[in-house]
Amino acid sequence: MSNKIFAPKGTNDILPEKIALWEKIESQAKNIAARYGFKQIRTPEFESTNLFERGVGDTTDIVQKEMYTFTHKGKESLTLKPEGTAPVVRSFIENGMASAAQPVKLFYLTNCFRCENPQKGRYRQFHQFGIEVFGAEDASSDAEVISLAYEFLRELGIKDVIAKVNSVGCPTCRKAYYEKLKAFIAPKLDKLCDDCKNRFDKNPMRLIDCKVETCKEHIEGAPLMLDELCTDCKDHFEKVKTYLDCMGVEYEVDPKIVRGLDYYTNTAFEFIPKDSTKSQAAIAAGGRYNGLVETLGGPKTAGIGLAMGIERILIQLEEQGIEIDTEEYTDLYIAPLGEGAKEIALKYSTLLRREGITVLTDVMNRSLKAQMKYADKINAKFVAMVGEDEADKGVFLVRDMNTKEQTEVPFDKLAEFIK
Amino acid sequence: MSNKIFAPKGTNDILPEKIALWEKIESQAKNIAARYGFKQIRTPEFESTNLFERGVGDTTDIVQKEMYTFTHKGKESLTLKPEGTAPVVRSFIENGMASAAQPVKLFYLTNCFRCENPQKGRYRQFHQFGIEVFGAEDASSDAEVISLAYEFLRELGIKDVIAKVNSVGCPTCRKAYYEKLKAFIAPKLDKLCDDCKNRFDKNPMRLIDCKVETCKEHIEGAPLMLDELCTDCKDHFEKVKTYLDCMGVEYEVDPKIVRGLDYYTNTAFEFIPKDSTKSQAAIAAGGRYNGLVETLGGPKTAGIGLAMGIERILIQLEEQGIEIDTEEYTDLYIAPLGEGAKEIALKYSTLLRREGITVLTDVMNRSLKAQMKYADKINAKFVAMVGEDEADKGVFLVRDMNTKEQTEVPFDKLAEFIK
Repeated sequence: MSNKIFAPKGTNDILPEKIALWEKIESQAKNIAARYGFKQIRTPEFESTNLFERGVGDTTDIVQKEMYTFTHKGKESLTLKPEGTAPVVRSFIENGMASAAQPVKLFYLTNCFRCENPQKGRYRQFHQFGIEVFGAEDASSDAEVISLAYEFLRELGIKDVIAKVNSVGCPTCRKAYYEKLKAFIAPKLDKLCDDCKNRFDKNPMRLIDCKVETCKEHIEGAPLMLDELCTDCKDHFEKVKTYLDCMGVEYEVDPKIVRGLDYYTNTAFEFIPKDSTKSQAAIAAGGRYNGLVETLGGPKTAGIGLAMGIERILIQLEEQGIEIDTEEYTDLYIAPLGEGAKEIALKYSTLLRREGITVLTDVMNRSLKAQMKYADKINAKFVAMVGEDEADKGVFLVRDMNTKEQTEVPFDKLAEFIK
Repeated sequence: MSNKIFAPKGTNDILPEKIALWEKIESQAKNIAARYGFKQIRTPEFESTNLFERGVGDTTDIVQKEMYTFTHKGKESLTLKPEGTAPVVRSFIENGMASAAQPVKLFYLTNCFRCENPQKGRYRQFHQFGIEVFGAEDASSDAEVISLAYEFLRELGIKDVIAKVNSVGCPTCRKAYYEKLKAFIAPKLDKLCDDCKNRFDKNPMRLIDCKVETCKEHIEGAPLMLDELCTDCKDHFEKVKTYLDCMGVEYEVDPKIVRGLDYYTNTAFEFIPKDSTKSQAAIAAGGRYNGLVETLGGPKTAGIGLAMGIERILIQLEEQGIEIDTEEYTDLYIAPLGEGAKEIALKYSTLLRREGITVLTDVMNRSLKAQMKYADKINAKFVAMVGEDEADKGVFLVRDMNTKEQTEVPFDKLAEFIK
């Protein structure tokens, strides 16, 4: 039969030779999250579709074009999570975490799913490391979140890490700003792209970061939110900057970083590789969302979070030539010759594994020569040979694969010898 | 707003207070897999639907009733994985692993999705730890797979672990057996349940383990595959038993453990909690599938594997009263009083986290009293207080939360003191 089946378009297997790198990044993520006092949460792979319509925003590309939505047996409409924040907020509300000691600091490592056109750094199933803080309004919380991303990327060895920060204000100052912005744009609106036209009414701040060249030209000189902040928002942003300095985070203010939904407030930030020639995609991004918990049916609760794309971090590591040691060794290969010896090999493989030792043995009925070749392939540090003679004497003939030295070791001394 | 959104039926959040238990089981799984020489693989959450139709079998309940299948934008039909083996086989074939050093030993920790009626131990999203061995026909490989499950469950502290093993023969001896079995059942077929009637032609061995009481009575005395094995299959099964003895696995032969698809061959096994009064569901099950790789479009390749349900293991741990220590501590809480002190707290929280210390500090602008209460809640081992006086002197006043002893520690000696 030759009708092979392939992994679905835009998805990837993570094969054994890449696993060590993934595990390393994930354990580093868990480790830094713990040092900052974040606790892990895991939410299901799919949610009610209306969670994302309400929690991501129904004017966004994600909700309009990219979600994997399905209805099982004509019942509730479900959607594979396209991002990690809305599910965590849903869980925060559902599990009454607003009554726990505040702030509630959660982190996640999750799959996300978006049906985009696959390209480097954009996959239909991808992976995110994210953190969320609930219940803390203070600017020090914004700084702490940004600091975690900064330290995490630096600890991985990524060079030239720099945070771009901005403030998108609050509903009050944004309202006045929108008037000003729309007045500036209105005369040019018919020259802008369709996306810009669609966003003009509901979400005008998004026009500021349109990537279309002609739109960029027309929007040049438009008023910026950062110049129109109310006193409270200005004060918050000044404090964020002071605290980022205290925490040793390198950053620059970039008034073009926007998040256009009503529940986003104050701080918005991104980490874009400084001199990445190949890709300008953010490897981490986040912001404050003081309105989101309420939008999703919970009590009024401050919130701030960020998400980082694991695949994009991997691309950075590769582009910057950063290698993480992933070579693997096998402590011991037991090479039996003959049926009696095989039973001994199986017995001692179990006993030694119980002692924490990695042991492989022959399950292929191979010749000694073929077994030694295999032991080389799996990077065995020691090979314990046992044939009829050794079985009679109750010993293994142990070869140190590095020095090639051979030693006779009694059966019950093998664990000790290997350790 | 009060229109809350809930997690979809049959799915669960894993909340911070349960995470330590999950992480413990997963790290134990990774650890024992490594000791047996298995390498981790991760496959996407969804696959082409026909992978499961061909790789699980289109007469099974899973494929007929329980799959989450969706078609995105009228294109390919995709299905959330209902089990872990078929995707791993697909990846084995797609990535040409038949040309790698044999055997190829892979393990996975994965989500699975089945739209069943939720009940204890059965969820719509659940989690499996599974292993697969490709390229090893020898009975020692069967024993090694069963041994891994046995040792894993024992290491978790589960009592009375016992493997139930059987052989389902090969296509040759099964053909003769099916004739005999059908001749026995045919006269009683109209008295059996609908499932039995449907399976009679395509999959008669499954009638042996029908759970309906009246079916059980009628099938009592039916010929068993184990008594009808050909010489090769008999020899293989005898060796499996010998090798299980060598590896110290407690087992019993149970001729009623069946797997009725053509690509299953020889060994079938289950681990059912011995004296579980509340549930008879297997916590681990597996078998040999020498025909599966070929069925899915790959080269003829021997295969054997097993899967364990994480939720079912958790239920066992709970029912057996096995507790795993999951209490968590925070190394240090820095309690600042006043804006100047806060900047110091933020600075030193970063510096200490860089040294591997878990540090929390105030992001709520709380009073000292409220901060001490919070430090208690998060199990802080030390609290470093800093107010105006301390800031002037360049010291923290550090309280050991256990002994209540207080010490002045210069700013730059704090990391050292905590360590």
